[in-house]
Amino acid sequence: MATEPLKGVYRRYLQCLNERRWDDLGEFVREDVSHNGKPVGLGGYRAMLEADTTAIPDLWFTADLLVTEGDVVACRLMFRCTPRLPFLGFRPTGKTIVFAEHVFYTFRAGKIAAVASVIDTQAVAAQSRP
Amino acid sequence: MATEPLKGVYRRYLQCLNERRWDDLGEFVREDVSHNGKPVGLGGYRAMLEADTTAIPDLWFTADLLVTEGDVVACRLMFRCTPRLPFLGFRPTGKTIVFAEHVFYTFRAGKIAAVASVIDTQAVAAQSRP
Repeated sequence: MATEPLKGVYRRYLQCLNERRWDDLGEFVREDVSHNGKPVGLGGYRAMLEADTTAIPDLWFTADLLVTEGDVVACRLMFRCTPRLPFLGFRPTGKTIVFAEHVFYTFRAGKIAAVASVIDTQAVAAQSRP
Repeated sequence: MATEPLKGVYRRYLQCLNERRWDDLGEFVREDVSHNGKPVGLGGYRAMLEADTTAIPDLWFTADLLVTEGDVVACRLMFRCTPRLPFLGFRPTGKTIVFAEHVFYTFRAGKIAAVASVIDTQAVAAQSRP
């Protein structure tokens, strides 16, 4: 698969997340998607995203670095947001926090099949309530 | 810069780390390298790697996923190692731990100029002493 098409698909995926169009998620994500090795499926993946954006209503997905090669998209996502509910187990302060998430997406037949994600939880912890 | 040469440079960089050839680090890393936005310089970067490999003598850098495009290399590194000293503030148990690091390297003139790294500290914490 050429580089540009996959990058375009990924950018439309981020737009789908930012517009909270959960019913369209299946256009980008496979039914049998896994997240960090766990077979969460499309339903579980959607539930995770819905929970995150409920905890953080202004969670906008912004690509800071985006690299694609073959069937893999690697993205450094930067978030500047204001959690309203506990996120990753950390209690919000009411203030805006900034943190990164580094994600590798493996595509199969044009859709995301596997997501390997590491969130900078130390940054989130440092900006949350003890 | 073509994709393959940069990937080759990066693989030789990992080999340099795995062979602890610190005096050769300047072949791959610029004098003015930054790490997570901090201008640590080659000396600071080397000191960090030396400290990590002192704390974890069997810290072998293995590329699980490797994506390069333009001047950026994105790598999912997987570690299976046995920390001997505290690492990232977590006390070792004496047992082998497994964790990922997701890193984006921006190259300039064929050498690493900027490193953006997120380590799965939750995994390290879960496998360390309380």
